[in-house]
Amino acid sequence: MSRLHALTDGVFAIAMTLLVLELHVPDVASTGDFISGLAALVPSLFSFTLSFAVLGAYWLGTVWSLAPVRQVERPLLLLNLLALLFITLVPFTTAVLARYPDQPGAVILYGTHLTLLGLAQYANWSYLRANPKLLESPVTPGEAAARTRRILFGPVGFVAAMVVALVSPRAGYAVYYIVLFAYIFTAARDRSIISR
Amino acid sequence: MSRLHALTDGVFAIAMTLLVLELHVPDVASTGDFISGLAALVPSLFSFTLSFAVLGAYWLGTVWSLAPVRQVERPLLLLNLLALLFITLVPFTTAVLARYPDQPGAVILYGTHLTLLGLAQYANWSYLRANPKLLESPVTPGEAAARTRRILFGPVGFVAAMVVALVSPRAGYAVYYIVLFAYIFTAARDRSIISR
Amino acid sequence: MSRLHALTDGVFAIAMTLLVLELHVPDVASTGDFISGLAALVPSLFSFTLSFAVLGAYWLGTVWSLAPVRQVERPLLLLNLLALLFITLVPFTTAVLARYPDQPGAVILYGTHLTLLGLAQYANWSYLRANPKLLESPVTPGEAAARTRRILFGPVGFVAAMVVALVSPRAGYAVYYIVLFAYIFTAARDRSIISR
Amino acid sequence: MSRLHALTDGVFAIAMTLLVLELHVPDVASTGDFISGLAALVPSLFSFTLSFAVLGAYWLGTVWSLAPVRQVERPLLLLNLLALLFITLVPFTTAVLARYPDQPGAVILYGTHLTLLGLAQYANWSYLRANPKLLESPVTPGEAAARTRRILFGPVGFVAAMVVALVSPRAGYAVYYIVLFAYIFTAARDRSIISR
Repeated sequence: MSRLHALTDGVFAIAMTLLVLELHVPDVASTGDFISGLAALVPSLFSFTLSFAVLGAYWLGTVWSLAPVRQVERPLLLLNLLALLFITLVPFTTAVLARYPDQPGAVILYGTHLTLLGLAQYANWSYLRANPKLLESPVTPGEAAARTRRILFGPVGFVAAMVVALVSPRAGYAVYYIVLFAYIFTAARDRSIISR
Repeated sequence: MSRLHALTDGVFAIAMTLLVLELHVPDVASTGDFISGLAALVPSLFSFTLSFAVLGAYWLGTVWSLAPVRQVERPLLLLNLLALLFITLVPFTTAVLARYPDQPGAVILYGTHLTLLGLAQYANWSYLRANPKLLESPVTPGEAAARTRRILFGPVGFVAAMVVALVSPRAGYAVYYIVLFAYIFTAARDRSIISR
Repeated sequence: MSRLHALTDGVFAIAMTLLVLELHVPDVASTGDFISGLAALVPSLFSFTLSFAVLGAYWLGTVWSLAPVRQVERPLLLLNLLALLFITLVPFTTAVLARYPDQPGAVILYGTHLTLLGLAQYANWSYLRANPKLLESPVTPGEAAARTRRILFGPVGFVAAMVVALVSPRAGYAVYYIVLFAYIFTAARDRSIISR
Repeated sequence: MSRLHALTDGVFAIAMTLLVLELHVPDVASTGDFISGLAALVPSLFSFTLSFAVLGAYWLGTVWSLAPVRQVERPLLLLNLLALLFITLVPFTTAVLARYPDQPGAVILYGTHLTLLGLAQYANWSYLRANPKLLESPVTPGEAAARTRRILFGPVGFVAAMVVALVSPRAGYAVYYIVLFAYIFTAARDRSIISR
């Protein structure tokens, strides 16, 4: 269990920090150029912040979903490795989005990636729900349904964003932001104690 | 012990995440080029997925092989460092394979690397078997033989893949996939509890 | 709690180590060129050391500020993620400073970043002070005031450095060093036991 | 204490894994070129292995030196951060050595770095010896002297290697290997239990 936490937290920490490698120092000669060189980084800063929020939200998700797990077995480890595979790809699709914010393909690639991330998290949770012996204590049907809704909120929002992106890539991009920050602010309202 | 786990999980997490650095954002001008630019990344995605599966499988291997270890001494730490040396090299041989999937040399370099990884894992296990005082509880001869078979399954499969690669690099490449996924699906069937 | 520690320590460790990627091996032909090639790295070494000290000081800050935390809830996790967002950006603003040490804009960008880092730490501490149920034991008003002063020492010093940088970028740069090392040597004098 | 371990293990894990970024995939057209392209990587592989052994040896050193520490205070954390500063620089001096194995300056830069690493470890140990209240149990004078000898073995050997490098860079390089592997094989002979 602690091994799985260590690997997971390591992969999240590295993916979060590797995002910064896409911010390239501008190559300029004069002071005026320096300011405009930094201004040219604004699209990269937007995608950096979005992806950091994505990683933060999914990390919060794993803290929440693994907290009640009492025992680990191989299929659960494999499902978690699958989720980590999608986490390690975040710096790549972020870099594509930063470079081509006006390409519908880039916005849809990013949304497909986020949707797969959400479905991997859903697969983890479905496995736990089907194997209650792995949990610390039984989950009531009401709690289980609330959790399912919460996990599927992301993929549903991301699919909506992709539809918007077919019309306007920038508007689709904005919907990712809205979905993410709605998720985060909802999470912030929930002040139940997570761990001692 | 927890120090060895922390270093090991850190190296695996970083090696997994560094694999993504080999996926380069395509450099294109038009929408049509964008799609074909992404399509050109497919070989890299194949080697990325393969190497992620390799790292995942060996990480599962260390979770499994270190779980019953009760005490650590220097030779065991050194053997684990040797295994980590081969783990850190995975992003390099993966990048070679992604770039030259049709070169027998690249496929054989990769296979040699995987074989060395398997033999390092075997050395760790042999050391533990020869020093049962380091284990939580004695291992029966039947369990020990099963574990040996399981560890040597990888190197034997990889050597077979290299022989195939001499005839057809792509077919050798495919055999790596088959060996890896056979290993993972066998592991997934084993639902014994690993840790609390 | 341990998950938050693991993610935090991971992000700090990676940000510290990624700083080294800004030290580029000089590209030279003769022995004389080799020495001058290394000498040309001195500005990068200065910014490397400064940023390592920044990360070290803030890491010490999180060790100190999270040590008395008994329980974690979502808003606290989110505030910590916000602080980590600024930590992951350190290698970027460091690289800008290493490349343009004589640009007021670069020195002010760096100072703004450090100030935001300090304010994020202050937000964490304010939240804990407002939610004493999350703490191991109550903090006396005197201790709380001392802690607040200590945390705000950084941002106040960094703002002063930015004002100096408007006149002379190099002098502003020097003030960052002075503020950081004053903070570190003050910390070194405090020999109270932090943890068992 | 566990925070210090986590940061330390993280920095070592990342420094070890970043070494691989200096192994560049050869850029070739034909099969014959591919083999010679790989052969051109041999100097990089030598410096990679040497630096991995350096990091492994110092990591073993921290496992050994921090194991008996019962309590942590700020000056000890700062001394450990100083040691980590030198650890994060290892990928840089390794890259210089890989590129210029025949430059006395590169071999001496590397040796100076290793010597500073050894002296930082010595400073940590000296601090602990002067503050026995931080240790789990008192250290006998004989044990303390043995430990001091062991820690100083590295710097003495590295200084000798640098003197040799003034005459022949390659011979100096070889002495680093000899010192490191002598240290590792001596460590491997010591089979006392390190931790449960």
